[in-house]
Amino acid sequence: MKRKLTAILSADVKGYSRLMGEDEEGTLRTLTAYRQILDTSIARHHGRIVGTAGDSVLAEFASVVDAVQCALVAQTTLKAENATLPAEQRMEFRIGINLGDVMVQGEQIYGDGVNIAARLEALADPGGICISGTVHEHIKNKLTLTYEDLGEQQVKNIAEPVRVWRVVLEPAATAGRGALINQGPTEGQGEGASGRAGAATTPHAGLPQ
Amino acid sequence: MKRKLTAILSADVKGYSRLMGEDEEGTLRTLTAYRQILDTSIARHHGRIVGTAGDSVLAEFASVVDAVQCALVAQTTLKAENATLPAEQRMEFRIGINLGDVMVQGEQIYGDGVNIAARLEALADPGGICISGTVHEHIKNKLTLTYEDLGEQQVKNIAEPVRVWRVVLEPAATAGRGALINQGPTEGQGEGASGRAGAATTPHAGLPQ
Repeated sequence: MKRKLTAILSADVKGYSRLMGEDEEGTLRTLTAYRQILDTSIARHHGRIVGTAGDSVLAEFASVVDAVQCALVAQTTLKAENATLPAEQRMEFRIGINLGDVMVQGEQIYGDGVNIAARLEALADPGGICISGTVHEHIKNKLTLTYEDLGEQQVKNIAEPVRVWRVVLEPAATAGRGALINQGPTEGQGEGASGRAGAATTPHAGLPQ
Repeated sequence: MKRKLTAILSADVKGYSRLMGEDEEGTLRTLTAYRQILDTSIARHHGRIVGTAGDSVLAEFASVVDAVQCALVAQTTLKAENATLPAEQRMEFRIGINLGDVMVQGEQIYGDGVNIAARLEALADPGGICISGTVHEHIKNKLTLTYEDLGEQQVKNIAEPVRVWRVVLEPAATAGRGALINQGPTEGQGEGASGRAGAATTPHAGLPQ
């Protein structure tokens, strides 16, 4: 069995069936234009489209940095395109990115790593990007972005919980502040979080009243 | 916009991510073997594979009879293959079939008709087949099978409810009794169903006690 470590990008459109039901030809026109934006970004970041079906796209990259930058460029461009459309015609992609050691068969890739990318995608906001803990580890010191820790998430048919980070796309966050801003772990993660000791909940005790 | 009327078959594997998580290489071996069975049945019934992604397959047929027969042959063959595997390694495809006037772009097909096929697939039992009301209309007098009316179902992101029929695959039903057996409409359909008039619930009234 041939295997390789690869960055996997999974994308699909929020409410695709609804859009298609409301306006078939308009939706296909938008999908075609938007897929061209996404496909161009994939190619420019040295990615390869592995499979497509309807509104869903699966791509792989030799670099996690390339994969995340591809997603950033695509989502930013698509957001600008959506701004020109009436609200009900807007088409928003969700993107999930994972790094995994996958099985290779012909042009296809298979395995847990691929399936987890699809679950990350489902957790992403429309127009947003979710990445796994391992992707975050690899890019956090290389890409000056804001990452929000969504904690460990139990996802369908995956035995182990998946650590999920959201890439914050708001302009203030992506303007390059020169510092990595990691928001703290979400509630319930308990990574050194307080809650038990009374003192920890009053950090200003001792300061002038 | 080029369009055509086509029979659309959508298939995927129940619990694919779970199987992959438990045994990656074994699952890929089974998937490869089972896809060969499915792909062969598609080709023999003059179908064309439009797209694949992981465990999912989308195919189209010029004939609804061919599409349903393809699914029957594939599910029957796969059932026999599964019988040779331990329970935890069995891989069951769900299949949905719809007939729709779809948009054609290159090798791809798009539209409500495609999306409804995917919803029908999700409603199918593992190892089973669900068809839409329009498919049922076209095949009920051509294929001697048992069809169970699952009524009108509201499915995600599709505005209108979809009339769903289950193709009953149990051996007794597929042995060709020479008569079409439609089970009655499901509760709540109310298509000429009884329930109000007392007499209708006692069809043998008048026969010798």
